[in-house]
Amino acid sequence: MSFNLIKTCSATRARAGELVTPHGMVRTPVFLPVGSQATVKTLTPQEIKDIGFDMLLANAYHLYLRPGASVIEEMGGLHNFMGWKGTILTDSGGYQIFSLAGLRQINDEGVSFRSHIDGSQHFITPELAIKIQESLGADIIMVLDECPPSDADFNRVRRAMNRTHLWAARCRQTHRRNDQALFAIVQGGISPELRRKSAEYLTSLDFPGYAIGGLSLGEPKEVTWNITEETVALLPKDKPRYLMGVGSPEDIIEAVSRGIDMFDSALPTRVARNGALFTRQGRVNIENSIYRKMAEPVDPNCICYTCKNFSAAYLHHLFRCGELLALRLATLHNLSFISNLMSDVREAILNDTFASFKDDFLKNYKPTDEKMRISQKQKWLERN
Amino acid sequence: MSFNLIKTCSATRARAGELVTPHGMVRTPVFLPVGSQATVKTLTPQEIKDIGFDMLLANAYHLYLRPGASVIEEMGGLHNFMGWKGTILTDSGGYQIFSLAGLRQINDEGVSFRSHIDGSQHFITPELAIKIQESLGADIIMVLDECPPSDADFNRVRRAMNRTHLWAARCRQTHRRNDQALFAIVQGGISPELRRKSAEYLTSLDFPGYAIGGLSLGEPKEVTWNITEETVALLPKDKPRYLMGVGSPEDIIEAVSRGIDMFDSALPTRVARNGALFTRQGRVNIENSIYRKMAEPVDPNCICYTCKNFSAAYLHHLFRCGELLALRLATLHNLSFISNLMSDVREAILNDTFASFKDDFLKNYKPTDEKMRISQKQKWLERN
Repeated sequence: MSFNLIKTCSATRARAGELVTPHGMVRTPVFLPVGSQATVKTLTPQEIKDIGFDMLLANAYHLYLRPGASVIEEMGGLHNFMGWKGTILTDSGGYQIFSLAGLRQINDEGVSFRSHIDGSQHFITPELAIKIQESLGADIIMVLDECPPSDADFNRVRRAMNRTHLWAARCRQTHRRNDQALFAIVQGGISPELRRKSAEYLTSLDFPGYAIGGLSLGEPKEVTWNITEETVALLPKDKPRYLMGVGSPEDIIEAVSRGIDMFDSALPTRVARNGALFTRQGRVNIENSIYRKMAEPVDPNCICYTCKNFSAAYLHHLFRCGELLALRLATLHNLSFISNLMSDVREAILNDTFASFKDDFLKNYKPTDEKMRISQKQKWLERN
Repeated sequence: MSFNLIKTCSATRARAGELVTPHGMVRTPVFLPVGSQATVKTLTPQEIKDIGFDMLLANAYHLYLRPGASVIEEMGGLHNFMGWKGTILTDSGGYQIFSLAGLRQINDEGVSFRSHIDGSQHFITPELAIKIQESLGADIIMVLDECPPSDADFNRVRRAMNRTHLWAARCRQTHRRNDQALFAIVQGGISPELRRKSAEYLTSLDFPGYAIGGLSLGEPKEVTWNITEETVALLPKDKPRYLMGVGSPEDIIEAVSRGIDMFDSALPTRVARNGALFTRQGRVNIENSIYRKMAEPVDPNCICYTCKNFSAAYLHHLFRCGELLALRLATLHNLSFISNLMSDVREAILNDTFASFKDDFLKNYKPTDEKMRISQKQKWLERN
């Protein structure tokens, strides 16, 4: 894998590049649709491609549990198994395992946990996480990291960071497939000091790419962006930077302006299935009765399959009836929105107009969950 | 609408024809995918078309309740609302209303019932059933009929038949749109005598097409086919004959050989969503562990989108995970199977080889629910 930096914005840290992988070239900044279980929910690989995506994310933890890494290996690897000819990144599943509160135990050797599916007992080490991802055969794979919760205290975050470092070194040493790039994950919570230590240690090991983990877990957005900014400043310019688990339109814009090249998030597809559709003015709830008789598409400016073929009234009807086609059409729309947004972002960077693009976008785009965000922030401040 | 009879089999009553409608020509025998709520579950209209279907069924009862016939009328009619350019038949919903045991009351004027969605009170007359279907704007619409349950006694079946006749005449008198064909529905349960009366009365009113209702409701298959055979013999040769609610592969073959031209059934799509996939050898259950590592498609001879692109192992995985794409791919497969079956059936009729086609098909095709069928028959015999 190689990363070619093509252009850096003069007014912000935004950058445009190319990721060259065994399964094709990917233009950055890039958003990865989430296909944890080897499927982007409701869509075929062909549709993902047609929307404009060249790369997606799958989850080694989910696939290790079901159908099992060996099954996928026997079926010719993940690309073949799921019928996706483009680039794949597998997350190691550290985040998912550490989200299994109560079901897991951790020591320096690895993490033991009970499957969320059948309660079976498992023990994953950094070495096994790499072995699993080598079996799956993605183009980019991730180290096993320890991701502490957002309310963890400084000492706990530091211990998790140190263990993440130990495991990153072991992952690097174990990894053999030279057609895969192994990315490190910077941890350190919301402490600038720990983030600096983490970035310095991991860059000293010289990985082909760096992710920032453990952010956007409930902390105020100012904190997310400050930590992102300070961490990015410590990462090498010639390597891709990947902000894990972030993917709302407004967050992508903010993160791109701070030098992030890669994103993944289940948010666009998850909110689609709840009837929340993206427009450049913000999210709309298609179940709202104002759409009952709207003969126009949800977003008249949108050229996605859904908006080209169906009225808002029809989508409203499908959602009200709980029809399965609703989930598909909404997912198509939201992923098309994100894909178009990424194209516009990249073009703005290449034309060196990203700063004004960002201002215009954020001025028009009203996140509908502003109230929820304020109440979340309040809770967070009370806790910390 | 016009119906052109092209060929009748020399050894059976099977026939091939053409139904010419305002939204295109439909080759018969034809199977109508069921899109009760203005969507064939999981699929887009384009996919239905690509599979090979020119006609589908929607349900006036469902659409009257949600989103309301007036909404669809304002949105330019059902074709426009759901984005389907082909032919549409709407069922009046008599069957659905009479399945609401306990929630409905009937007299000669009409039927009052509570919505299965919100419990609201409604009163549907034959006149309103026609008005609703005129608003929806399908190419073929159905009279409001009374469909008694399969365990109803002779007198109850006779009363329901007489009311169906009364209502058929009123529907015919009310119907105004000359771009729609109104079909009658023959009732009479499993009584050859009542079926004869019903066929004679309804043909005397001269409808452009005749459906057979109230069959395949749990009675033994021999009874279904005897009644079908005797009823078909009383229907005019130059009008299409539609066996409502029948659509398993083996039942289609049996009914075609008895002179049926049209079918609808939710069975192929419903069983698909339960992981039961059609092959020419019978239904297979994709969740069975024998498919866990099967790199071949479910049916290696099938040229549907699903079988061309995905292994049985991948489908198995999607079903085991409860992934939404599973439902789509299985629905695509089963509807493709039925579409291909109808093409083969029609070709066999045109070549006058249908009798041997039928024998071959039924010899190879093993319905997997044979046990269930025998136990159902036992229960039915005990009751009757």
